[in-house]
Amino acid sequence: LEFTVEHIAQIIEGQVHGASSNQFITDVQALTHAQSDHLAFYNPGQNNITPEDLRASKAGVVITTEDFLEDCPQAAIIVEDPRHCFAQVADMFLVKHLPEPGIHPSAVIGVGSIVHPTARIAAGVIIGDHVTIGEHVVLDPQCVIGNHVTIGKNTRIYPHVTIYPKVSIGEEVCINANTVLGADGFGFTPDKQGKWHKVPQLGSVKIADHVDIGAACTVDCGAIEDTVIEEGVKIDDQVHIAHNVHIGAHTIIAGYSAIAGSVTIGKHCMFAGGVRICDNLTITDKVILSAGSAVAKTIREPGMYSSGIGSLKASRWRRVLSRLNNLDTLAKRVKQLEKKCYD
Amino acid sequence: LEFTVEHIAQIIEGQVHGASSNQFITDVQALTHAQSDHLAFYNPGQNNITPEDLRASKAGVVITTEDFLEDCPQAAIIVEDPRHCFAQVADMFLVKHLPEPGIHPSAVIGVGSIVHPTARIAAGVIIGDHVTIGEHVVLDPQCVIGNHVTIGKNTRIYPHVTIYPKVSIGEEVCINANTVLGADGFGFTPDKQGKWHKVPQLGSVKIADHVDIGAACTVDCGAIEDTVIEEGVKIDDQVHIAHNVHIGAHTIIAGYSAIAGSVTIGKHCMFAGGVRICDNLTITDKVILSAGSAVAKTIREPGMYSSGIGSLKASRWRRVLSRLNNLDTLAKRVKQLEKKCYD
Amino acid sequence: LEFTVEHIAQIIEGQVHGASSNQFITDVQALTHAQSDHLAFYNPGQNNITPEDLRASKAGVVITTEDFLEDCPQAAIIVEDPRHCFAQVADMFLVKHLPEPGIHPSAVIGVGSIVHPTARIAAGVIIGDHVTIGEHVVLDPQCVIGNHVTIGKNTRIYPHVTIYPKVSIGEEVCINANTVLGADGFGFTPDKQGKWHKVPQLGSVKIADHVDIGAACTVDCGAIEDTVIEEGVKIDDQVHIAHNVHIGAHTIIAGYSAIAGSVTIGKHCMFAGGVRICDNLTITDKVILSAGSAVAKTIREPGMYSSGIGSLKASRWRRVLSRLNNLDTLAKRVKQLEKKCYD
Repeated sequence: LEFTVEHIAQIIEGQVHGASSNQFITDVQALTHAQSDHLAFYNPGQNNITPEDLRASKAGVVITTEDFLEDCPQAAIIVEDPRHCFAQVADMFLVKHLPEPGIHPSAVIGVGSIVHPTARIAAGVIIGDHVTIGEHVVLDPQCVIGNHVTIGKNTRIYPHVTIYPKVSIGEEVCINANTVLGADGFGFTPDKQGKWHKVPQLGSVKIADHVDIGAACTVDCGAIEDTVIEEGVKIDDQVHIAHNVHIGAHTIIAGYSAIAGSVTIGKHCMFAGGVRICDNLTITDKVILSAGSAVAKTIREPGMYSSGIGSLKASRWRRVLSRLNNLDTLAKRVKQLEKKCYD
Repeated sequence: LEFTVEHIAQIIEGQVHGASSNQFITDVQALTHAQSDHLAFYNPGQNNITPEDLRASKAGVVITTEDFLEDCPQAAIIVEDPRHCFAQVADMFLVKHLPEPGIHPSAVIGVGSIVHPTARIAAGVIIGDHVTIGEHVVLDPQCVIGNHVTIGKNTRIYPHVTIYPKVSIGEEVCINANTVLGADGFGFTPDKQGKWHKVPQLGSVKIADHVDIGAACTVDCGAIEDTVIEEGVKIDDQVHIAHNVHIGAHTIIAGYSAIAGSVTIGKHCMFAGGVRICDNLTITDKVILSAGSAVAKTIREPGMYSSGIGSLKASRWRRVLSRLNNLDTLAKRVKQLEKKCYD
Repeated sequence: LEFTVEHIAQIIEGQVHGASSNQFITDVQALTHAQSDHLAFYNPGQNNITPEDLRASKAGVVITTEDFLEDCPQAAIIVEDPRHCFAQVADMFLVKHLPEPGIHPSAVIGVGSIVHPTARIAAGVIIGDHVTIGEHVVLDPQCVIGNHVTIGKNTRIYPHVTIYPKVSIGEEVCINANTVLGADGFGFTPDKQGKWHKVPQLGSVKIADHVDIGAACTVDCGAIEDTVIEEGVKIDDQVHIAHNVHIGAHTIIAGYSAIAGSVTIGKHCMFAGGVRICDNLTITDKVILSAGSAVAKTIREPGMYSSGIGSLKASRWRRVLSRLNNLDTLAKRVKQLEKKCYD
């Protein structure tokens, strides 16, 4: 797979400078690692990358802005947003890294399931009954897809993902390795002896278009209604989404966060890593939670919220913690002093 | 698979009202989603479900209490605890959603292993040597079962579960997808250069009857003695149980909790989500930990314990946090004031 | 597989006492569980194990120190560090528990991949194209190894591990079950409508020799440079390592910890369980973090740091928490009092 610089420039609507006619590109690569048949990019203000790196790069062609045209050692494609255009070009080469089109002979497909002929079903994939797999879907090795699941076009499912029965997944979705979608929500009721009995979990999981979910996540099915992840939501690794959670469009959740049952989250929220939200709460649109925040009350106003504590030297923290545990007493002592001084 | 309303009512010991003779039910479903061949339930005081939903339901038959008989649009089965009876009926239909009985041709079974003829071994399952699989056990696609593992009757293991050698699992246990049982405990000792050397982990994991474990959990084997999970314990997704932990019967642990090595937990405890317990502690029976609690000391008295902090507006939290970090100084200033005012 | 006591003693350079000539040992076992054909060890000061256990043990031979020679009921091998020597002997018997040498017929191997003839490739393993598998590597059932991955000699990969393309793994590494190495880092940029667009992740993951990684971990690939785990690092279960993290040699990280993107961690650090580190920070060598510590600032000085809070009785914690939320006001009241009293 290769494309000419000219062809790439047309697709990203950029201007070519200095490319030889019929110069071919075989893959994308980072500026500092690229070879002469690679395309790289340089974005002003990019993390840890300097104009020196640009000048020293061996990339065959670099996507950048007009201001840096002079610094490009070889060919350039000039655009307004280099990073965004680079991502587009990266997608053009993606197919190089996919399993073969068609169904691998070791895959097992149940009765009544429809796999689009353009889909790529890798070795060891196991698909249940009455499943629908759309155009250009990629199922990586050893995914397990339960009965009555539907997967929309251009969606990619990485290895060892487990999808329980009846889950529905939209188009252009990406689910990373070892994630579990649709396991039963955690619903048990105690009897008089304190033994726990399972409450049947009858809902499922509904994932809209353009959702990304990281590796080793768990998204549980709903008890009655579905657990819903709306369009364009991005979720990092090791995130837990409990039953009946509803996440609004274009919300982004960093790694190691956990959302308890029946929480409703608005659109365009941004949660940093390690966030935890207690059950049955509502978080409105455009709420930002800083790293390690725990939310114990409904949030009705957009804005930034925090509860994270940063580490101190252990000896100092020990004193702080001992004071904290006795804070109620300290506050009462202050009240006494106030009585004494102001009365 | 279908049952008459009459047959179902006999099993749950309920009274039938308004069912036509030979009315058949093909599955259970939520009240708001049920069709005329489905059975649903209505529990007074149920979350988000109202008597209006009951009156509007298209369910063929509804399990409810005597008080709501009049609100049932079609047939009813009257019982004392509708939710519990519904769970019983749901179990009757469970078999519809299972893999076929017998051993799928793609499964691999080691030497000396005994698989009961009623067990259902799905595609891609890999069973080691000298394994015992009991009656009616269900192993979903691509489970890996190590050597010398025993699995008791009626237990269900979901896809991509890894069970290390020598783990023993009781009857009527449920292990959700991508969970790992019996990986080595985290035991290393440093040499004089500060390099870490593994301490062999010789114990295993012993899981008693009626235990439920969620998706993507890890339960490590013991260093010498076994890690033990007693009867009826229920564990949610993404929970980590380290080596030599002992969890008492009928304790329930919500998602995203982590129990460090050699912790002993009593019976009938209830841990909310995100709980963490430091190593070598003992938690007595009937301890309740609220969401996000961290336990750093042994707990000898039953009751509810907490350490979770809820988020504030970030600007306010920043001031609180700065005061917290200087709390020792503040306490000393209060002491000074007391000297000044009371002496 | 069996060895004579004499042969074992030579390897660990210990002195044999009381063994019959040609006494054979068939496996290692814990002191309290060992039978007459097993080797056990007794370390002075070992957790929960007493000299009584030693005297009562049925082990065929016990590795211990000179001081306890008299307490050994049967044969003994006397060394200076019994635990360390026991680990060496345990390694001699490890091969008993491995998959068969060679490639299982159900494994799938891509084009251009080189598997060393001494490697053990278990059932259901799927290896991509241009992969290199070194001497004596063990790939357990259903590992998925992406294209262009290299795995050094004597490395062991447990079931259901997913290794994304281009990851490189050193020698004598151990990766436990259901861990994911090399999934894309969490990189998205918003457009003007607040929709998120993926930033291509071009780096990979590089794991040096003698690294141990627990079960259900995630180590993401770097955005441009690689995510790097240096020699001898030990990582427990359920740990998340984000893109571009760099972990120095011989650092040890306990379970349920999460390291955010572009964090640099020094050598010989020790992190207890549940530690979280915010993105872009640097932690110097020999930093110790206690359980549940969150790090929000770069740490330049070795030593111990903390931020964990332990649980109190819920009623008391509720009062503390309410005081904490109003701590800024309390501090201002103290300031007022000081003005009043000292001016």
